Amino acid sequence: MNKAANANRGPAIADGELRPDSSLSPEAVRALIRAGRYTGATSGLAPGYVQGNLVILPRDVAGDFLAFAQQNPKPCPVIGMSETGSARVPTLGATIDLRTDLPRYRVWKHGELIAEVSDILSYWRDDLVSFVIGCSFSFEEALIEDGIPLRHVSCGANVAMYRTNIACAPAGAFAGPMVVSMRPLKPADAIRAIQITSRFPAVHGAPVHIGKPEQIGIEDISKPDYGDPVEVKDDELPVFWACGVTPQAVIGAAKPAFAITHYPGSMLITDKRNSQLSAF
Amino acid sequence: MNKAANANRGPAIADGELRPDSSLSPEAVRALIRAGRYTGATSGLAPGYVQGNLVILPRDVAGDFLAFAQQNPKPCPVIGMSETGSARVPTLGATIDLRTDLPRYRVWKHGELIAEVSDILSYWRDDLVSFVIGCSFSFEEALIEDGIPLRHVSCGANVAMYRTNIACAPAGAFAGPMVVSMRPLKPADAIRAIQITSRFPAVHGAPVHIGKPEQIGIEDISKPDYGDPVEVKDDELPVFWACGVTPQAVIGAAKPAFAITHYPGSMLITDKRNSQLSAF
Repeated sequence: MNKAANANRGPAIADGELRPDSSLSPEAVRALIRAGRYTGATSGLAPGYVQGNLVILPRDVAGDFLAFAQQNPKPCPVIGMSETGSARVPTLGATIDLRTDLPRYRVWKHGELIAEVSDILSYWRDDLVSFVIGCSFSFEEALIEDGIPLRHVSCGANVAMYRTNIACAPAGAFAGPMVVSMRPLKPADAIRAIQITSRFPAVHGAPVHIGKPEQIGIEDISKPDYGDPVEVKDDELPVFWACGVTPQAVIGAAKPAFAITHYPGSMLITDKRNSQLSAF
Repeated sequence: MNKAANANRGPAIADGELRPDSSLSPEAVRALIRAGRYTGATSGLAPGYVQGNLVILPRDVAGDFLAFAQQNPKPCPVIGMSETGSARVPTLGATIDLRTDLPRYRVWKHGELIAEVSDILSYWRDDLVSFVIGCSFSFEEALIEDGIPLRHVSCGANVAMYRTNIACAPAGAFAGPMVVSMRPLKPADAIRAIQITSRFPAVHGAPVHIGKPEQIGIEDISKPDYGDPVEVKDDELPVFWACGVTPQAVIGAAKPAFAITHYPGSMLITDKRNSQLSAF
């Protein structure tokens, strides 16, 4: 079955879709995805390996986007980048083809979503530059391995995310507030989580805030702007990390003539190990 | 003037006492102290160099104390130790003589304070073992250099300290609750302070608690058990570090037949740089 034939089947997971075995290598998972046999979420696949957000932009705005990322490394940590017109990011995996290796994509024109597709072969252009941006899956794995419970993970929910009053440094058309993800943690776990995530600057790094949501413009912690609400218990502090939804929100506001992103939750699975992202 | 002649002049700072210039080397400051020319607090002297708490115990209980320290490294980080009967700790400074080089000492018998003196030459015994324990001055210097304001320092006050409900792991007669010091910090500064102090495990390391004082048995944050109260503003979190007062309190409760400690605030000034205590 050729994946391109399914290009417009949309975001719903296909009936009878093959859920890749979590013991498969990143390359084997990508091969299944490339063959059109899986179009779902990538959470839990190829455990131990880095997954990334994807942003593809025409060259004429890609420079500004890279400048935005350079100035806002916590919400927008670039972990890989293609050459213009190339769908390869060899630093993240020799066999990666960004046109086919993610389960689902979103295609945008002037800030409007025009298609959700399982490959982007028909949308490819020679002037496109691709960015792979670090994702909190990497640091969440390190937290869980350390014994720190993450409620949204144990509930099978999406992490709660909020627009803040923290302004990103603008670059060209790219500007806007930082979006943060929130995890409720007991105080000692919060301290340990700060230590662990400090080792991972390539996937948002240390939190940007702890406690006191009102200080960063969050009026109601029970009403996230993205994702699912999660309870913060009396003996817990809400801990806030810069979130990869920030660049997506910023691109939505900048309305570039053309853009492609991953479909939320359907990430690029790379050959890099999460531990290789540790700065020390 | 021979320092021994002043041995019993007590804790008051002598009239006309020479305040050592802060540009003096650790060795030069120790030489002034040894000569009996300074019996005050050591905060601010020999900036950049490690200062330590001193605990001296007879050999028959020193082993248990070392076991206590080994099991409670956050409140009781041993950064230097003498051989039995020796007043030298060459790893902290070739010329250190623990009998004369601290401005003031406290001498204890069966948990009772029996003397406050400016040298311990007349109390020295061949069975004594000396421990130098890391002090928060080292990490406070790193915090201040990073631009994090510390209210008790800017107020010229002692840090606020509290007995908690966190039990230390016991060893022989040495047992008791952990004492913590508290510094009020804005959330982003608290995160940065956790990062910075994590690099300094030899001087209490990362905080043990943040926010929510009631969880560790502190009922009224405005009433510290030791030191001076300090305001916690609405936009701040109280951040709690394990404190070197813990071993002092534990020794007080264990009531060994004989003990000598430094006089609070009058520390051993070593030849080691604070930066050399950084684990990474």
